[in-house]
Amino acid sequence: MRPAPARTGDALGAIETPALIVDLDALERNIERMAAFARAHGVRLRPHAKTHKSAHIARLQMAAGAVGICVQKTSEAEALAQAGVSDIYISNEVVAEDRLARVAALARRIRLSIAVDSTLGIDRLAQAVKAAGSTLDVFVEVDVGQGRCGVAPTRAGSLARMVVSHAGLRFAGLQAYHGSAQHLRRSEEREAAIRHAVSLASAARAAVTSAGVACPLVTGAGSGSYVFEAASGVYGELQAGSYVFLDRDYADNQPTPHAPVFEHALFVRCQVMSRGSAHAVVDAGLKAHAVDSGPLRVWGRELDFTGASDEHGVLRPREGSSTDALPALGEAVWLVPGHCDPTVNLHDHFVCVRGGLEHGRVEAVWPVDARGCVG
Amino acid sequence: MRPAPARTGDALGAIETPALIVDLDALERNIERMAAFARAHGVRLRPHAKTHKSAHIARLQMAAGAVGICVQKTSEAEALAQAGVSDIYISNEVVAEDRLARVAALARRIRLSIAVDSTLGIDRLAQAVKAAGSTLDVFVEVDVGQGRCGVAPTRAGSLARMVVSHAGLRFAGLQAYHGSAQHLRRSEEREAAIRHAVSLASAARAAVTSAGVACPLVTGAGSGSYVFEAASGVYGELQAGSYVFLDRDYADNQPTPHAPVFEHALFVRCQVMSRGSAHAVVDAGLKAHAVDSGPLRVWGRELDFTGASDEHGVLRPREGSSTDALPALGEAVWLVPGHCDPTVNLHDHFVCVRGGLEHGRVEAVWPVDARGCVG
Repeated sequence: MRPAPARTGDALGAIETPALIVDLDALERNIERMAAFARAHGVRLRPHAKTHKSAHIARLQMAAGAVGICVQKTSEAEALAQAGVSDIYISNEVVAEDRLARVAALARRIRLSIAVDSTLGIDRLAQAVKAAGSTLDVFVEVDVGQGRCGVAPTRAGSLARMVVSHAGLRFAGLQAYHGSAQHLRRSEEREAAIRHAVSLASAARAAVTSAGVACPLVTGAGSGSYVFEAASGVYGELQAGSYVFLDRDYADNQPTPHAPVFEHALFVRCQVMSRGSAHAVVDAGLKAHAVDSGPLRVWGRELDFTGASDEHGVLRPREGSSTDALPALGEAVWLVPGHCDPTVNLHDHFVCVRGGLEHGRVEAVWPVDARGCVG
Repeated sequence: MRPAPARTGDALGAIETPALIVDLDALERNIERMAAFARAHGVRLRPHAKTHKSAHIARLQMAAGAVGICVQKTSEAEALAQAGVSDIYISNEVVAEDRLARVAALARRIRLSIAVDSTLGIDRLAQAVKAAGSTLDVFVEVDVGQGRCGVAPTRAGSLARMVVSHAGLRFAGLQAYHGSAQHLRRSEEREAAIRHAVSLASAARAAVTSAGVACPLVTGAGSGSYVFEAASGVYGELQAGSYVFLDRDYADNQPTPHAPVFEHALFVRCQVMSRGSAHAVVDAGLKAHAVDSGPLRVWGRELDFTGASDEHGVLRPREGSSTDALPALGEAVWLVPGHCDPTVNLHDHFVCVRGGLEHGRVEAVWPVDARGCVG
């Protein structure tokens, strides 16, 4: 792990750039707002930790009422379990036998669950669990509109029966996440996509019960759509993750009526390392933030982030603004990442600031425990 | 650092997915071909190590004749120096005082050089070097067409004079890299862009000598354009880096006549974790490869990589191919990254394969020494 770019007690000016910053006040408000929403709507909250990869943030979420966390990868589960998280759901398929052996071993140490969407996957999982002498909660994933992983609703019954046929596997319910619905910009579009997802999840649940298997839970939802899953009467658990940081891409969604308001809590602090007459170059490029979901937002300034190369970001005055808006050489700039999950994965540390981005101080430095856990 | 996804001696099937793979035979041929080109054209080669971040690969390049390596960041220089690389050029501006103190300290241990493009940068560098009692080679960066960092050619003389006015700073020449020329698809376009860059570099050199300062070297060039800089009579040193791996984006360039042919030497090995009737989902997404320069190429198969999310990649049959081309659940797939530099930065290890991607074995596992060194 690299040396941290700041130390507890540092003033903002002492933070080495580029650094990944958490605004602790905003983070805590986001965590509390989502927890309150879940309580008020009588659904469980199991936030996705692929967003933050941090045992510390997972514990804050669980202290606020989350039942546990989701991850996507075996090594992520191992890293967060190692750092003290005791209830983890791998909301994704694992078919590699080496990894399934590790999943089965981890299930002896913590409360662990996993998703499946194939007979091969269930067979291999059952063998691994048998060899390890562990037991595991298993969710059958249903494709509810994304067209990525998951089976058709009609196949959910036969897979659920197959799960319960193995002594070490407990059928825990249905995984029903609609990822591509999350960034439909209009709330009505997201609502329509989730209405369709709910109908498919509902059909899958009926297929499971028709097959003679009880279906305890339907789990899914993301930060763009959770209001609709929560209101469905079908989903009993929400997996939203990005709400904790609110990246630029989620902030660009038109708000859902009556939904909690989240705040940007994740920033990349950088500084100007070169100045032209009409542009400034900052020291944060493709290795300090992800651009897959579009550019970063320049926080609190009339500037656009107009280009990233490996180690550089280019800022220009927003249309209609003067070049006076450009920061000086050496001046600090705060960026709001376009996509929080892959941005966090580029850093080894969160520098946690209390008291705001103007006059705050570094209250803590947390490791990104599962940084680089892709396997 | 994470556990490595393979061990020396492993068969290909034993490599955990997703993993970053180096085809050692192709890597060695690429290194030798570029070294032979530089020898034949009487120019120095100082490959950019921001591509590979590996002391091992740097040493292979230097053993083949490279005079040293380039990096972009202070922490990259520190990590590679720590791993034994003794001649490093930070071909980028550093204006942060904390970092300049580290640059000056590192200059006491290895042969180090750095770029500048501002009076503030030179002042701060001179102060740091004075405080550390070290000396440093300094290149003045000229903007030769990219419009990012660097000064106009006419300003190069006054900055060179400012450099030589400080006892600890040696003026070493001009940094003149045209990044945006590298991926112009037609060779004629790249040639025209570099013709313009050469004229600007030449004007800057004249400005330096007119200011009474000798200009020992003009350094620059990348893997898309180095043939033209080498032929210019102005550039004395080539900084190409990506040739060592040849990513998909560089391979998409139309070839330059009479240029060496490079081969893909970097891959992401992944496996199918979910199958639909008309698509396959692999276990390598945005956290295993960079998509800023377009999608990955699926190696040796009639498949297109049609979408990446955090932990998933979606493969579909190429237009006109049947779904029979789709790999089965659990089957391995080799991907050629769209952009090698930020892809390497996502991984902790190179798994180095000898004997090809079908029947080879793991000959070595190398750390990505400067992974995550963004500061």
